[in-house]
Amino acid sequence: MAENRQNRTELKDLGEFGLINHLKQQVTLYNPSTRYGIGDDAAVLSESEEETVVSTDLLLEGVHFDLTYTPLKHLGFKAVAVNVSDVAAMNAIPQQITVSIGLSNRFSKEAIDELYAGIYAACEAYKVDLVGGDTTSSRAGLVISVTAIGRAKKEDVVYRNGAQPGDLLCVTGDLGGAYMGLQLLEREKQVFLSNPEAQPELTGFDYVIGRQLKPEARTDMVHEFKESGVRPTSMIDISDGLASEIMHLCTNSEVGAVVYEEKLPIDEETLKAASDFKIPSATIMMNGGEDYELLFTIKQDDFEKLKNNPNVSFIGYIADKESGAKMVSKGGQVIAIEAQGWVHF
Amino acid sequence: MAENRQNRTELKDLGEFGLINHLKQQVTLYNPSTRYGIGDDAAVLSESEEETVVSTDLLLEGVHFDLTYTPLKHLGFKAVAVNVSDVAAMNAIPQQITVSIGLSNRFSKEAIDELYAGIYAACEAYKVDLVGGDTTSSRAGLVISVTAIGRAKKEDVVYRNGAQPGDLLCVTGDLGGAYMGLQLLEREKQVFLSNPEAQPELTGFDYVIGRQLKPEARTDMVHEFKESGVRPTSMIDISDGLASEIMHLCTNSEVGAVVYEEKLPIDEETLKAASDFKIPSATIMMNGGEDYELLFTIKQDDFEKLKNNPNVSFIGYIADKESGAKMVSKGGQVIAIEAQGWVHF
Repeated sequence: MAENRQNRTELKDLGEFGLINHLKQQVTLYNPSTRYGIGDDAAVLSESEEETVVSTDLLLEGVHFDLTYTPLKHLGFKAVAVNVSDVAAMNAIPQQITVSIGLSNRFSKEAIDELYAGIYAACEAYKVDLVGGDTTSSRAGLVISVTAIGRAKKEDVVYRNGAQPGDLLCVTGDLGGAYMGLQLLEREKQVFLSNPEAQPELTGFDYVIGRQLKPEARTDMVHEFKESGVRPTSMIDISDGLASEIMHLCTNSEVGAVVYEEKLPIDEETLKAASDFKIPSATIMMNGGEDYELLFTIKQDDFEKLKNNPNVSFIGYIADKESGAKMVSKGGQVIAIEAQGWVHF
Repeated sequence: MAENRQNRTELKDLGEFGLINHLKQQVTLYNPSTRYGIGDDAAVLSESEEETVVSTDLLLEGVHFDLTYTPLKHLGFKAVAVNVSDVAAMNAIPQQITVSIGLSNRFSKEAIDELYAGIYAACEAYKVDLVGGDTTSSRAGLVISVTAIGRAKKEDVVYRNGAQPGDLLCVTGDLGGAYMGLQLLEREKQVFLSNPEAQPELTGFDYVIGRQLKPEARTDMVHEFKESGVRPTSMIDISDGLASEIMHLCTNSEVGAVVYEEKLPIDEETLKAASDFKIPSATIMMNGGEDYELLFTIKQDDFEKLKNNPNVSFIGYIADKESGAKMVSKGGQVIAIEAQGWVHF
């Protein structure tokens, strides 16, 4: 957070209402369903013949992000993207967000503007409207809480519980990049802490670092499903890692799954980083989190409609509940997929 | 937070998914509009011929609450009530909430159960459904973020900007109680810190302490407006203090206002506490926050419909913008109402 002290406006000089007014003036609205946004006790969304989908996330400094290497603008973008991703994972179109922030005095108005520049960039990228929120002081680091609201026709909503044996298991994009990006950033932070003169060695890793700092939500797939006439039978976004999300689909749908390691999509940079860190690439693809790609299942009959889609990899299939969730390694070994989840208490 | 250590379940033994499952099992749903609650990427609310109203609040330990004297159950209730109050202030019926919490290791499962017992009590009191949220660890005290969603017919939604000169200015309940409750609790905390053997002197102040620790949202008024055929011309809930909320109505509606001190409703206990602390009662009624009563305006023609309502006090009227916002004291002095707001950065 290098700042020019001469261009620093203290939050206490602005006050809460001053800050809200300042933020409100920058808001662009994209959706006709936004009847009334910031400025009253609550936002008002117009009546709808579609269902409303609601998702929320809480991001805490020191737990979900480290401001040593996370630019505030990227953080703002990511806070919105991860919620938009949850709405997309329901096969719904995100339309509105609320953003609440807890700020300590160490942030200036200019720093908050950077954070909101990222939030507004995400609003523009995903065409969602910032309709409300809460701003407050914090004695304990930066707190960001985002709620995203989307809409979908009742028959289009996709839950975690619709996968059937025989369905194809698919994933968008590639896996493990965000995790390797985090490893690189953490390594450079340690180097920096022990020797502030050292130059960061991040050259050649732009993609994986971008995957960690500025993940994209796959709202494009919601449109592509519509255009190609495919309704996934189940879907979830990959925030905690592929293994964990496969277990969620299996548990909720009461099915098993078979995944082929050789079918898992990985970027060359991720592979290079994994090799540098001497971590098996399968571990990274299965357990690295925060890629915010979509994991979904489709009927076999829909294969033709998606087989040429460059965003989609077919990584396995849904099996009976009794056979559990398994990965077939490149060497042909069958390995049980463990329910990982993260335990960060 | 006195706890029996023998009945303590550590959060790390439960894990995130364990905690979510545990909480999910206790949820009761009250609204047919809740199509799908906790357990997927997002909650799903059914299509509606009414408008959707969304409000959100962020509560941080050390800023918004002090666990030294705030029982977790009361805190859970209050976190919901303050958001439900915002929805009621739009003249809408609250139906769903999402609750995100950041927890540190010092909380046990049993402590979280207390917090959620309060949340569920509020859900039952206001008939709202807990449909989603986020649970995460926190390195910096308890964080609670609540988003409330309500519904209202388009023609029933009341904004801050509809007050017209000549309208009557009304307030529900009584004022200043929550503020005096806070003063009493803070005083006793200081006494306790300097002498842990001292007995708290809170006898006779049950009402004002309850106003601070367990405020009620005035959803009852939304129903009463409907039954009596009154649509307020503008409305806001009193969270930051009457003076500040009057200024919001005046600014948003581009009007002025005249308030009579002698008409302001106050409880005897609040008056007693104000006298003990030597604070003028007008100051407490005008600037004491967190009462979560409703401030609203009605057409003069609607006076007959509400005049016998025991919940409503008529405290003044709306004037031209040019005459500003003023209070007429008991002695007949005319005092300009200042835009207070709170500056807690």
